[in-house]
Amino acid sequence: SRSINLAVIPGDGIGQEVVAQGLKVLSAVLPQDVKLETKEFDFGAKRYHATGETLTEADLDALKQHDAILLGAIGDPSVPSGVLERGFLLKLRFAFDHHVNLRPSKLLPGVATPLAGQPEIDFVVVREGTEGPYTGNGGTIRKGTEHEVATEVSVNTAFGVERVVRDAFARAQARPRKKLTLVHKNNVLTFAGHLWTNVFNKVAEEFPEVTTDYIHVDAATIYLVTDPARFDVIVTDNLFGDIITDLAAAVSGGIGVAASGNINPSGEFPSMFEPVHGSAPDIAGQGKADPSATVLSVALLLRHLGYEAEAARIEDAVSADLAERVGKPARSTEEIGDALAVRVAG
Amino acid sequence: SRSINLAVIPGDGIGQEVVAQGLKVLSAVLPQDVKLETKEFDFGAKRYHATGETLTEADLDALKQHDAILLGAIGDPSVPSGVLERGFLLKLRFAFDHHVNLRPSKLLPGVATPLAGQPEIDFVVVREGTEGPYTGNGGTIRKGTEHEVATEVSVNTAFGVERVVRDAFARAQARPRKKLTLVHKNNVLTFAGHLWTNVFNKVAEEFPEVTTDYIHVDAATIYLVTDPARFDVIVTDNLFGDIITDLAAAVSGGIGVAASGNINPSGEFPSMFEPVHGSAPDIAGQGKADPSATVLSVALLLRHLGYEAEAARIEDAVSADLAERVGKPARSTEEIGDALAVRVAG
Ligand SMILES: CC(C)[C@H](C(=O)O)[C@@H](O)C(=O)O
Ligand SMILES: CC(C)[C@H](C(=O)O)[C@@H](O)C(=O)O
Repeated sequence: SRSINLAVIPGDGIGQEVVAQGLKVLSAVLPQDVKLETKEFDFGAKRYHATGETLTEADLDALKQHDAILLGAIGDPSVPSGVLERGFLLKLRFAFDHHVNLRPSKLLPGVATPLAGQPEIDFVVVREGTEGPYTGNGGTIRKGTEHEVATEVSVNTAFGVERVVRDAFARAQARPRKKLTLVHKNNVLTFAGHLWTNVFNKVAEEFPEVTTDYIHVDAATIYLVTDPARFDVIVTDNLFGDIITDLAAAVSGGIGVAASGNINPSGEFPSMFEPVHGSAPDIAGQGKADPSATVLSVALLLRHLGYEAEAARIEDAVSADLAERVGKPARSTEEIGDALAVRVAG
Repeated sequence: SRSINLAVIPGDGIGQEVVAQGLKVLSAVLPQDVKLETKEFDFGAKRYHATGETLTEADLDALKQHDAILLGAIGDPSVPSGVLERGFLLKLRFAFDHHVNLRPSKLLPGVATPLAGQPEIDFVVVREGTEGPYTGNGGTIRKGTEHEVATEVSVNTAFGVERVVRDAFARAQARPRKKLTLVHKNNVLTFAGHLWTNVFNKVAEEFPEVTTDYIHVDAATIYLVTDPARFDVIVTDNLFGDIITDLAAAVSGGIGVAASGNINPSGEFPSMFEPVHGSAPDIAGQGKADPSATVLSVALLLRHLGYEAEAARIEDAVSADLAERVGKPARSTEEIGDALAVRVAG
């Protein structure tokens, strides 16, 4: 019989609330014969304040025993900026080699967008997750003085770029439009830019059916608001991916519905799925958070583990739920979770 | 008697066409007693193909003899990506220490925006122009092999950050709302992030009337489409500034009206003014380009040289011209230039 052994990290702020709904929907959608086991981990601000720890080697060993990880959100104003981001979120992505950071953007019917004229939006960003300016390379000299110099080093390797570019080509190949756009800034960041561009062009030869193009990251932000329909699959560097996926989320319904997967395609380490949004301390504990982004992250998780039909059922349920919201009073986090659980079970 | 000694760089593609209109409006707006002298320089793709040169020491010496520089656009598909950008545009910004890259965004009445509901947009981005990932630091090893490693180093100095932050505070102080937002990614790029944040907080003490806040660059792209009215003045790093000002231009009427100044506030070197848009080879030579961005760059140039009344007259003229366009057939580059020249002279 089949089983899913899931590590659950509710985390901080609204993380707790949205993860509870994600698990509710997960339980509801799984067939009877699939045994779901979950283990909760207490990472985040509370543990950091109590122990000074963010993520230890023992934690990584424990997480490694699972098929996948579901995360709510990590981060709290009581912790200095960077401590939990670098000490937990990024540490985990790097330790588990989550080099494919998958972020789909789809504007669903009835969902509000800040763009005029309800454009068609349906694309996926494949963001590199283990290189670029995110490596923590760099440093500071003469800190706090008028002669301080701080550097940040973007590290890009042929190995790291090629594997994510190949993953993106495969995803583009599997979609009806079969189009892949490389987003970079190769006219200014010429060292990294040449590497990305050359690897992209080389891998393109293996995928003759995929149409390709290139645009600079600054121009990409223009297209995301003036012509988002031009995008099908985008592959890009870690930092550019961070920036354009927040914009992509904003134009395609907001971060209330933006899901993401931090994927290790080889399966050597468990992949992690999380909403794009943060812990939103301002609305935490009030039942106001929309759990849809977490529920959609559960769908990505199921697809990653091979449960395609269940993933699609979740996506359809969220889509139907969003379409029915128009003009109705706002529901609580739990009410939305309950409604989705009913839909996916039906 | 007063005089303006202007270096003019029409450049490539539509650069020629829009600069001609910029000069036309400049001549029309200047009072009789101001003597305008212009000298044209032939930088760009043509010169590069003919001589292999982009910008020599002798060129820099010649440019230095002027009060300011007006540039159309540089760049052509016939030149490999990066050659003219690094060899001309960035070389000039670095050589003339253009550390304040000023990019105002204002959604004028009647101007189309991709955002629903015609929001209020009136802010200025002060982008650092001589540091960050734009320094050209970095390199490549094992180029073209499967073991290639390419790095890009973002260099940030207390000296460089403080002067641009102070400039931004002064600009915020001079505006009615007196609000300054620092945009960075200090939770991930912690070395540069701490430097920027600390310098920002330190300089803030000198400007007690200015309200400050901080947002991450990814979140900034969300606000730019969901709540652009929250911004008054933004100060940010070279790369983040590049990205968010293209988005800012897109939401506030498009790059047809986005002006910029590459400013050396000390006056040691001439400042350069240019539209945010590029050379647009696809529409070059057809009289289709909107010269408004160049004309608005002329206004920034005049303000920089102390001609405040003339700068305001140009801005009012462009504003009136844009408002009158609604529902009318498109005019040529020259027709728009003529109309603006008439308006500013009247
Ligand atoms: C919180 C932060 C470390 C993270 C990132 O920059 O990757 C977040 O913005 C995201 O996009 O997942
Ligand atoms: C052409 C390029 C070098 C330039 C930049 O990146 O600064 C442009 O995008 C700009 O914003 O002026």
